Amino acid sequence: MVTWSFVDDYFVEDEKAVIHVRDLSVQRGYGAFDFLRFEGDQAIFIDDHLERLFRSTRQLNLELNKKKEEIKAICLELIRRNHIREGGIRITVTGGISPDGYHPVHSGLIVTQHSFQLPSKEVFHKGIALMSFEHQRQLPEVKSIDYLMGIQLLPKIKEQDADDVLFHFNGSVTECPRANIFIVNKEGKLLTPAEGILAGITRSKILQLAAEDLKVEETAVSLDEIKNASEVFITSTTKKLLPVASIDGCTIGNGTFPICTLLLSRYEALVK
Amino acid sequence: MVTWSFVDDYFVEDEKAVIHVRDLSVQRGYGAFDFLRFEGDQAIFIDDHLERLFRSTRQLNLELNKKKEEIKAICLELIRRNHIREGGIRITVTGGISPDGYHPVHSGLIVTQHSFQLPSKEVFHKGIALMSFEHQRQLPEVKSIDYLMGIQLLPKIKEQDADDVLFHFNGSVTECPRANIFIVNKEGKLLTPAEGILAGITRSKILQLAAEDLKVEETAVSLDEIKNASEVFITSTTKKLLPVASIDGCTIGNGTFPICTLLLSRYEALVK
Repeated sequence: MVTWSFVDDYFVEDEKAVIHVRDLSVQRGYGAFDFLRFEGDQAIFIDDHLERLFRSTRQLNLELNKKKEEIKAICLELIRRNHIREGGIRITVTGGISPDGYHPVHSGLIVTQHSFQLPSKEVFHKGIALMSFEHQRQLPEVKSIDYLMGIQLLPKIKEQDADDVLFHFNGSVTECPRANIFIVNKEGKLLTPAEGILAGITRSKILQLAAEDLKVEETAVSLDEIKNASEVFITSTTKKLLPVASIDGCTIGNGTFPICTLLLSRYEALVK
Repeated sequence: MVTWSFVDDYFVEDEKAVIHVRDLSVQRGYGAFDFLRFEGDQAIFIDDHLERLFRSTRQLNLELNKKKEEIKAICLELIRRNHIREGGIRITVTGGISPDGYHPVHSGLIVTQHSFQLPSKEVFHKGIALMSFEHQRQLPEVKSIDYLMGIQLLPKIKEQDADDVLFHFNGSVTECPRANIFIVNKEGKLLTPAEGILAGITRSKILQLAAEDLKVEETAVSLDEIKNASEVFITSTTKKLLPVASIDGCTIGNGTFPICTLLLSRYEALVK
C-alpha cells in the first residue's frame, strides 16, 4: 500500500517525498516543526500543535503561505489517505532555498506520517533511566529542528546505560531533548521547570489535569531536588507520561509511580 | 549550461539534487559540512578542509563510506564538470534516513558548487559593522550545519544597521556565525579567541603568516578589549580577511587597517 506525504503544494508518494539539497534545513539546520498523534480520524490536540507551530515559525521569521485551517486540512487528508489506525503526523517548515544560502526567503512545507510505539506497560512499570548533562538548548521555546546535542550524546547515553538525557543549566534542570519533566516532591506537590524549556502540549494538559486536586507549581528545580523527589516523570506526545526510575544511577523514590499513573489515566480520558 | 552536483553516489544535474524529507538533516538539523574555495582547477587548502570535515563527522558519530581521497576526487571532478572559473565547493554529510527518526544509521553525502562574491575593495576599505550578542554555539569545534541563532538574528542585525553578529559568552568574545575574529591591540599584538570557536582554516593560515614578524596569541578577549583595539578583522574562506570598522556602533581604532591589509596580501600570496 502506498504511503502518502505532502511536500510544498502536493501530496506525493512517500518514496518521492524529497527536497532540494540547497534547502536551508539541509544547509543550515534552519526550520521549525510540530508533531501530533492521531487515533482513527482524530488528530489529537491538533489546534494546540498548529498554534505552537505558527508561534515557532514566527520566532524563526519563516513565512508560511498557508493558514492554520489549510494545514489542518492537509493533515486530516493525509490521515484519510494513509488508512493507518494510529501514528504521528509531523509538520515541518523548512528555511527553503535561499539565493545566498543563508537568508531565508520562501519557506518549504512538509507533512509526513510516522509510526512509533507508545511505551509498553512493562516500560511504564519499570520506568526509565536518565543521565544528566549540562546544556541549555538555544531558543528553547521554539520547536526548531535543532537536535544536535541530543543526538550527538546518544553514544554517551548508551555508555551510561541510560535511556535519555536530562539537560540542566546554571543549577536548574530544564528538559529532555524530546520531553518535558515533572517531579512530585516529598510534600506531594507537582513541580515542573518554568524556563529554558519547550512549552509541551502534553505538559500543559498535565498541568491542567493535576490542578484538580494537587498543588502544582511551575518553578526552578535543582538536580538535587529532582534526585530527592518521590516521583519523577517525563511527558511528550509520543510517550504520554513515562516514569523516571533513576537519574545518574540514583534511584528516585520507592519505585512506585502512583501520581504519574493517576495523571496518565486522566490524560487518556481527556484524549478520548 | 548544466550545473552538476553530487548526491550519495552519483553526479546529478543540480536541479535534480534532492534528498528524502526523512533525512536527519531535515528532521533534526543533524549533519556536518565543510566549504572550500576554488580558482581554476585549484581547490584551495582542500586537504585542510577534508581533515576538518572528517574530524566533524567523527565528533557527530557520522560514518562516511568514502575516504578523504575519494571525496577529494569528487570535488575535483565537480569543478572540472562545471567549467566555472571560481567559486565554492560545499561538502555536506547529513545524518541520513533513520528508522526511528532520531538515531543516525547511514550518513548521506552531498557535494555542491556555490557562487559567492569575495568582498569588494570598497567593502574592505570601509570595513564592516558588527553587533554583539551573548551566545555560545553548541559543539563550536564541530562544523555542524547548525546556524539557528545566526539566521534567527538576521532581522535584529539589520535593525541595528550591522552586517553581522559577534557572539560573546561569560565575558569573552568568540566568533561570528561564519567567521573567526582577530584583534590587533594597542601594543601591536595580534590576538584571537582560543576557546568556544570553530578552528577556521583561514584563521590557522593567518596565525602562521602573522607569526613571521608579529607577536601572536590565542587567548581570551573581552568585549571591552575588542572595542579598544587598534584593528579588528574577521577571517573566513569566503571573506579571506575583512576589517571591522565598528562594534555596537563603537568605532574601532582610527579607521585604517594596515595589519589586516598586510596579512591579506600575505594570505593571497600563500594561496597563489
